[in-house]
This record gives sequence, C-alpha cells and structure tokens, in this order.
Amino acid sequence: MMLTYSFADIGSDSLYEHLYKCIKNDIISRKIKPGEKLPSKRSFAKNLGISVITVENAYDQLISEGYVYSIAKKGFFVSDINSITSKKKIVVNHENLAMTSDEERYVADFSSNRTNIKQFPFTVWAKILRECLLDYQEELLINTPSGGALVLRKAIAGYLKEFRDLDVDFEQIIVGAGTEYLYGQIVQLLGNDKVYGVENPGFPKMSKVYEASSAEVKHIFLDSDGISVAELEREGVQVACTSPSHQFPTGKITPISRRYELLGWASKKDDRYIIEDDYDSEFRMTGKMIPTLKSIDVNEKVIYMNTFSKTISNTVRISYMVLPKHLMDLYYKKLSFYSCPVPSIIQLAVARFISEGYFEKHINRMRNFYKKQRDLLIEEINKSEMAQHAKIKEADAGLHFIIYLNLNCSDEEFVGKMERKGIRICALSEYYQGDMPKSEHEFLMNYSSLSEEQIKEAVMIMGKGFSLLKK
Amino acid sequence: MMLTYSFADIGSDSLYEHLYKCIKNDIISRKIKPGEKLPSKRSFAKNLGISVITVENAYDQLISEGYVYSIAKKGFFVSDINSITSKKKIVVNHENLAMTSDEERYVADFSSNRTNIKQFPFTVWAKILRECLLDYQEELLINTPSGGALVLRKAIAGYLKEFRDLDVDFEQIIVGAGTEYLYGQIVQLLGNDKVYGVENPGFPKMSKVYEASSAEVKHIFLDSDGISVAELEREGVQVACTSPSHQFPTGKITPISRRYELLGWASKKDDRYIIEDDYDSEFRMTGKMIPTLKSIDVNEKVIYMNTFSKTISNTVRISYMVLPKHLMDLYYKKLSFYSCPVPSIIQLAVARFISEGYFEKHINRMRNFYKKQRDLLIEEINKSEMAQHAKIKEADAGLHFIIYLNLNCSDEEFVGKMERKGIRICALSEYYQGDMPKSEHEFLMNYSSLSEEQIKEAVMIMGKGFSLLKK
Repeated sequence: MMLTYSFADIGSDSLYEHLYKCIKNDIISRKIKPGEKLPSKRSFAKNLGISVITVENAYDQLISEGYVYSIAKKGFFVSDINSITSKKKIVVNHENLAMTSDEERYVADFSSNRTNIKQFPFTVWAKILRECLLDYQEELLINTPSGGALVLRKAIAGYLKEFRDLDVDFEQIIVGAGTEYLYGQIVQLLGNDKVYGVENPGFPKMSKVYEASSAEVKHIFLDSDGISVAELEREGVQVACTSPSHQFPTGKITPISRRYELLGWASKKDDRYIIEDDYDSEFRMTGKMIPTLKSIDVNEKVIYMNTFSKTISNTVRISYMVLPKHLMDLYYKKLSFYSCPVPSIIQLAVARFISEGYFEKHINRMRNFYKKQRDLLIEEINKSEMAQHAKIKEADAGLHFIIYLNLNCSDEEFVGKMERKGIRICALSEYYQGDMPKSEHEFLMNYSSLSEEQIKEAVMIMGKGFSLLKK
Repeated sequence: MMLTYSFADIGSDSLYEHLYKCIKNDIISRKIKPGEKLPSKRSFAKNLGISVITVENAYDQLISEGYVYSIAKKGFFVSDINSITSKKKIVVNHENLAMTSDEERYVADFSSNRTNIKQFPFTVWAKILRECLLDYQEELLINTPSGGALVLRKAIAGYLKEFRDLDVDFEQIIVGAGTEYLYGQIVQLLGNDKVYGVENPGFPKMSKVYEASSAEVKHIFLDSDGISVAELEREGVQVACTSPSHQFPTGKITPISRRYELLGWASKKDDRYIIEDDYDSEFRMTGKMIPTLKSIDVNEKVIYMNTFSKTISNTVRISYMVLPKHLMDLYYKKLSFYSCPVPSIIQLAVARFISEGYFEKHINRMRNFYKKQRDLLIEEINKSEMAQHAKIKEADAGLHFIIYLNLNCSDEEFVGKMERKGIRICALSEYYQGDMPKSEHEFLMNYSSLSEEQIKEAVMIMGKGFSLLKK
C-alpha cells in the first residue's frame, strides 16, 4: 500500500504527531481498512522524506492507542477500530493485551536489551508469589515504609555485602518502582537547580528523566577510560551519573585509576555527588571484578543504584538505591511522605526470592547462559563471511558487546540493509548527543534476548549481506 | 522512663532531626536498653516543650530504621540493635517485617483512612493472581506500554462509563503507581513553572508532592460551597486540585453550581486545568449522585484522577488519571519514555478483577458494609453521654464524617485526653494551612478501618471522657 501525506501545513505539530494524526484519521475514516498492512518504517520514511525515528514514533503511538498492531516478522496492520471505539461493555480480548514486542518482527533484534523470557524462573516465581499470598495475608494489606519493606531492604543489604562487597545499613536502601522513578526521586532530593551530568554516548532515558524534572543536563563525553573528569569540571556538573562496571552503550569498564579520580572530583565540593548505576554488573563474564565506586567511597559521595530488571525481569519494576548516610535525614524530611510505589506482594516476593537463595542461583545460571550465548555469537561471527572484516570489542562484561565492521557504506545504510533482511541492529553513533566526533562502523550486539537459532540465523544473514556490501 | 534532651545547640537540624539523633545515639550507646519503653508521644512532647508532631516524626524515623518498634496498645520500645547492625548473613526474621501499624496501639483510630483489612476479598484476589500467573506467562515478562496495559485501561474505561457516566477513550487513561506518582507526572507534563492550587483545609500529601517537584503551591480556602473560585483568580492559580465528590477533610460535596463556576474559571485561559481527585466517590451513601466535573467538561479542562486504594487495597499501588485529549500528544512526547511503574502481574490482575465483575461486587458489598458501620457509629454516638453536645455533619458520602462537639476545652486538649484513653482522633483544625480562621471543635470520624467492637468501645470511652470534661 502507498500512503502519501503532505507535511506542508503541519502547524505547531511535530513531524511524528502530524504523521500519527494523518494515519489515525485515515483509519477512523476507513480510508485504510482493518487488516491492511502499513508500509515498513524504513520504506515509509524514504517515501515521505522523513527519518525512520519519526515513522517509528508515529507507529508506536498508534500501537499504544490500539489503532495498529504488529505481527511477528510480517509488519504493521490496521486494527478493527470497532472493537476500540465501542465501549458499551467491558470487552476483554486477549489479543488486545497488545504486548506484542518489536522483537517479534525480526529474525533477531540486537538492539534489544531485554532479558531472555524463556530463562525466567517462572515456576519458582509463581511458587513464591503463592507462598507470600498464603503467609503474609495481614502484611500484604498494610503499607510498607516509604523506603520499602524492611525484609526486602535487609535482603538487599545482605546481597550487596556478599556479592558486591558493599557494607551498607539496610536503612540506607530505598526501594522504588524502577530506575527512572529513583532518578526522579534523586532530583527531588538534591534539587532540580543542580547540574546533572550524563555520559555521552549514554542511555537516552537518563537525560529524559532530568529534562522531565526540569533539571539542567550536560552530556559529558567519554575518553578512553570512561566519563571525563576534566569535562565534568568544565561543564560545572554537580551530580555525575556513570556506570563504571559496564558503560552503556560502549561496554567499557572504568579502570580503578579513573574511579579514584571521579571520587576525588566529587570530594572537592559539598554539593557534588556521583550516581553509580550498576545496572548489569552481575553479568561480568571474564576477568577480575573491579570494586564498585561505592565500596571505595570513604567520603560518602556515591549514590549506588541497581535494578532487578536485568537479574529477575523488567516487568517486576523494582530498583533500589543506597543513599550516603548524611543524605538520609534529608530523604526522610523531604521524601518520606511518599508511599513506596512497589506493591507489597512484589516486595515480599523479591525479598523471599533473595533470602531463600533463588536469586543467587538464578544469577549464576544466567551468567553461564549468557556467557554461552556470547561465546556462540562470537564463534558464529568468526566463522562467517564477515569474520575478516569484523573486530569484537568489550565482550568481558554485561549483556552486549561492540562489533567494528570494516564497511564501505555509512552506518545508516548498513542498518537499513540489515533491517530489510529482518535484523535489527543499532550503530554506536546513534547514541551520541550533540556535535562531537562519533565512533564509526561500530554496532551494539545485545545477545541477552536471543535464542541459539536466532543467533545462528542472524549471523548467517549478516555475513551474506556483508559480503554483498563489500563487493 | 524520663528522657531529657537539650534543644539549645541543634545547628541546622530541624527539631525532629535533632530529637531523632539524640534518641538514636542513646540507643546505640546503650543508654537506653533494648526492650525499654519510650515515653508516649504526647507526654514526651509536653516534657520537652515541643509539638507532638515533632516527636511523632522522630519516632516514625526511628521505627523506619528499625531502632524502635511499637506494640499494640502498649507503646514504643527500643529494638535489639545487634539484630540491626550485624549484617554477616541475610537474616529474615518475620518480626522484622516491621509493618506494625499505628492503629494497633489504639482502641480505635478515627484518624486512619485505611480500608478495612478484614473485608479485603483475599480469596478472590489470590485466585486471580494465580490465574494470571498461569494464563499470562509470556505477557507477564514483556513490558506494558508507558500508560499501562491496554487490557487494564480498557477495563477502567468500561468501569468509568458504567459507574461514573464518563465516556473516555481508553488511550486517555494513564495508569500509575499511586496518586502521588501521578501528581508528580502531572507536574512534569504541565511544568513546574505553573501555580498549583490545593484545598485549604486539604490532604497534606498533595502540597508536599508539588513542593518536592519545585512547583509553586497556593493553599486556597474553601467557602460553604467548596474551593473558592474568587481565591483561585486572586492567587493566580493555573492548576486547581479539588475533590468535589467528597472533599477531604471537611467531607463537603461541591454543588453543581460551583462545579460550573470552576469549569468556567478553567475555560478562561488556555493554561488552566482542574485536577478532579475522585478518591472515594464510590462510597456515596445517600442521595443522588452529582455528575463528576469531568462528565460535564466540554472544554476538556479536567484531568480526572482516581485510585484503587480505597476500593481494592492501598497496597496494590494503582491509580489512574484521564487526560484531556489535547494533552495526549504532549504526554506521548514528554513522558511516554517512562516505563509504566506498576508490575505487569498487578495490572493484569486488577484488569481481570474489574472485567470479571468482582470489582463491582466488591464495591457494592463494601458500600453496604461501610454504610452499616457509619449507621452504627452514629447510633452509638446518639445514645452515648455526648449525644446532646454533639452534631454530626457531612455523613452522606465517603468514609468519614465530621462531628462537632460542644467542648469547654481546646481541640488540642480534647485530642490529648482521648489519646491517653486509647482513642486517636484528629481535629479538623489540624488540616488548615496558614493564618486563616479555623473551624473549632470539629473532628474527623474515619470509620472505614474499625470493627463493630472498636466502634462501640470507642464511643463509650469518648462519651465518658466527654461527660467528665463537661463537668
């Protein structure tokens, strides 16, 4: 199907809003009929002369609102809007769960940092939830303290002691509904009049949280050792966010010397803090653990942050932070009026998952599983047609590595070509902010959500496509 | 035990911080021993010449941190801190759940707006959670859209249509981890450069959310019809928060004329909005329903907000808001990067609870239950020794009413006297901000969390105490 829309007269709308409205109107007016296939994002973008991201945003919104649905490896289709707009009675249609993920449209999605669904310890989790329902009938109906259920915070403190060598009091631990929520709490705690520094390239959501909270954000470039301390100084940053155990997206591990430099920077002024986001440190594959910033932070300048999204599932929505002791009073004064946003049943279940040893077992199992996947992916690449033109980097930690490809086309062209073949891959260059020199021909290989078959098929497709490109 | 602390040299600490630190130090240094009873909040406050609230804040913090625990009707006791500070291994002690509620210390707590734990449909809820674990294995591991799972938003839309006569598209509904979370999202959506107006007297957490988000808050007094429109104008409010179905704490219902005035006020300027917090509208006991502001809001100026805290349980942490259609684009642009903070399992369970009819049944059952409690409480008051000196007000809606008592002492003295007899009760005057004329001798009677026995015993104690006071 060919769809053409004019962008001449879009008023104050952004491009994606305009596109979204045009398509929505055509669906409502039945110009595009239920079941019809919409153009692929890339071809649509090309035809309209706009970016793929714009089409993606418009499609995402249409999917969120139920006007469009997607089918694995087939594409985007128009919903039957009768079932959307009639609200005569409550219709629960299991198809309407609309939890179709992007991944299902691809042979393999190397851009997704999801955990592997099939590896989730569903039976144990369900058992623990059932046990908690039986054992905690009364507790489940009484609000936990603002910082989270004590039993959970104690379990986390025990875990941090044993596995991250962090000796913290459980009362320093604040439980929240995901890392974004806790970043927002930090802005409320330290003030949105502070200057927050994020890594460049970095995780895009981070700066969005600061912007949504009306705080000033500086994008601080990385040098070969990690976030640049000189740049933190130059930009007047007061709160620096960094993931020294495994930077996203570069995959770099910050060496101990830079860690001390960072702590030195923070110690120079009272209002300086470091947020250490340790999001996937559990999955270090090779080599010696480098101590966390928090564990060598004698001046109490580090707010340590971690999540159960990688280690349990992204849908449990639990993260936690460890506040320096001197910030506890401020926290209790300013923010303890908030109810803990995580349902009691989930807090108690995670506490039990940890304290009964399932968490440790699960992490160990997953580390082995992911290591095998990484090894398989590297092996497949090495025996593929792209082997002699590829170089693998930063494969020692976390759930992705970087591949450098000796391309004779632009990163965007390569990504487009792969997309058309059913492979979703992101260039490292897409994660850079502003006009700084970007890395070229480097791509993220997230392997955590893929099956063995997907890895094999994807590398074969990539290899073939790559050898055609080189000719 | 007598504890005396000096407040002469407290530096930049607030009073409660100072008190909290003094007690904590004495616990750590073993000046106060494990198991020792701390003074009651009221007597401690009196001895130190500080307010009860200050002692309460200090005690709450000590409880949160595990230094102090409370025993039903007995008081506050010092914990064995060895069990707190040793973190050699993960200790899960069920007593450490520390979910002891304030209520348990009282014969009856008329200040608590909790739902009645014993009435929670635990069997059905556990059944639904188990079913969801079985039926949605895959969906449970994939993130829901930012605004919440479509199946839940559709169930809510159906409920709003059927029971609140609200015809909204499900995509206008945004699900969040409690009302406080959603108030925070609104500040991020509309901007913290706006002036937010809250009711005076009102729900204290509301203004705390705005302050924590660095937004300007004006406390707008209520006249006999509800929030004053003239005052909204005078104070330059842009976003007004109100609960027209059942104002907290006065219990007043805003008449239709004032509702139109409010909508008129909002329509005068583009950047004006009304947040209609419909927190316990399901429990209107008598008389005709007055339409929600949202249902008569042709100009789309109302953000409708409701919660499952009152209707299911405060520990499920789900609330939702309905955004005006023209704010949807802004929401998607600014805030849809946030993951929905509610765990998928809870979203799916609430959706099923609604769509399978349990929610309606539960509300109807609870309305009858609460109506019986209200009637019993009024009946007991009417036959008690205070009957001829008491007047009951605003008993038609929600889960509390107001009692006027013809006292010959101050509100504070009466509250203190009741506290010593095991009755916790709050004066309406405690909810006022600033120097405005306060209501006198009016008290909140929250009856939702009490048992029949508690109601009878409490009224008997109050009646006796009251007759002594009058002599």
